[in-house]
Amino acid sequence: MALSKNTIKYVKSLHQKKFRQKYNNFIVEGDKIVRELLSQTAFEIEGLYALQEWLVENEKNIQLPSSQIHLCSPTDLDRISTLKTPNQVLLIVHIPSESHSTDKFNEALSLYLDDIRDPGNMGTIIRIADWFGISNVFYSSTSVEWTNPKVIQSTMGSFLRVRVQEMELADLRDSSPGVAIYGAVLEGVPIHELSGANTGIIVIGNESRGISKENLGLLSHRITIPKSPSGGAESLNAAVATGIICASLTR
Amino acid sequence: MALSKNTIKYVKSLHQKKFRQKYNNFIVEGDKIVRELLSQTAFEIEGLYALQEWLVENEKNIQLPSSQIHLCSPTDLDRISTLKTPNQVLLIVHIPSESHSTDKFNEALSLYLDDIRDPGNMGTIIRIADWFGISNVFYSSTSVEWTNPKVIQSTMGSFLRVRVQEMELADLRDSSPGVAIYGAVLEGVPIHELSGANTGIIVIGNESRGISKENLGLLSHRITIPKSPSGGAESLNAAVATGIICASLTR
Repeated sequence: MALSKNTIKYVKSLHQKKFRQKYNNFIVEGDKIVRELLSQTAFEIEGLYALQEWLVENEKNIQLPSSQIHLCSPTDLDRISTLKTPNQVLLIVHIPSESHSTDKFNEALSLYLDDIRDPGNMGTIIRIADWFGISNVFYSSTSVEWTNPKVIQSTMGSFLRVRVQEMELADLRDSSPGVAIYGAVLEGVPIHELSGANTGIIVIGNESRGISKENLGLLSHRITIPKSPSGGAESLNAAVATGIICASLTR
Repeated sequence: MALSKNTIKYVKSLHQKKFRQKYNNFIVEGDKIVRELLSQTAFEIEGLYALQEWLVENEKNIQLPSSQIHLCSPTDLDRISTLKTPNQVLLIVHIPSESHSTDKFNEALSLYLDDIRDPGNMGTIIRIADWFGISNVFYSSTSVEWTNPKVIQSTMGSFLRVRVQEMELADLRDSSPGVAIYGAVLEGVPIHELSGANTGIIVIGNESRGISKENLGLLSHRITIPKSPSGGAESLNAAVATGIICASLTR
């Protein structure tokens, strides 16, 4: 039983941002993360698309109404997948409504992504937040959005545990006057002098241009990852810098 | 003047590992890195492929014999490029003969990549090494090789300054008995307890499986990047982990 042309067209449309926004759904692929999603209730599932062998093996764990379960041939799955080499299963998930809540974010460390464009970087940063117990990742409207399939893939499942929201840094600051705002610049305080910072916002800048001029003005702490005197690289990858700053501040 | 079919075929063949090995050449793309390569002597250049506007603008900096300079139409460049969106210029560079020298590597920190498969990770790790002044990156024969175009691209030019060599960890250890060998495992010594380690090899494991059983046996120091008690991620990206370990050990 092949998927209908309309179904294929619909799932493929979710590869694009405008249709994710229109239908308010996004795609998640892969055996492990799909099984994790099927066993939780925070994210609402619209449809499951899987190969027969996967459906047989996971029958017991699927609580969905049969109208939401779609048996796929390998050719079908290849058509609807966002991956070069599709897995056995693809899930369509509702985008949870953004809470636009900044409740308690100022009682812990959070991340602010200022114009992060690379989906792999954003996903890897969400995974870093999850490792270091950082519950909130905010991002500028100019950044890639978190429901992008490559972002989801790079989070390795961490999008389930980290709240990711679009918000301007100025609004975030206004919602919590006096909050510490850290940002890496060329000549700042070496990060290891700041260990044990338990609250505040860590701003991560754009891959080429760093933190925007506007947001630079909002920083309360200018920090630096010290470069070796014999080092040659001009900068570090944005996700790598995030990991180093998080490891240092939470130490 | 269009490129000949044979020329196009030859450059495109270098997208593949086997032809890079056969011809002992690799591809470098992008205005900035190409200009940097044209102004140095450590790497020997075989051919320059560029759009007219680039050639005009950079005329003064090109010291190559005219037989090595190839004027490309945008269509030509698109055909020979490894990038989705080609830059203005592509360079073919001789692969320097591996020195197989481990001279002095034990007087500083070096990295060992144990089965790193993702080219983006390897390139980002070479860039990290360059930032922290680590001159030597060794890698297992099972890893992606450093002349892969995506590795080169992700290094952001750092391959010019870091010596990258294929070598087995056991051979490296035998060449310098007693050298400290660090590797991240689940239950090791927290990295911040080890700061100021100025010599030794940091082993980075495979993206899914971590450090191989064989190489685990060669570690002298089992280290751990502490995860938050409230953290959920199972692991960190290999390049991110490398950055955190390097930042901590060189502090």
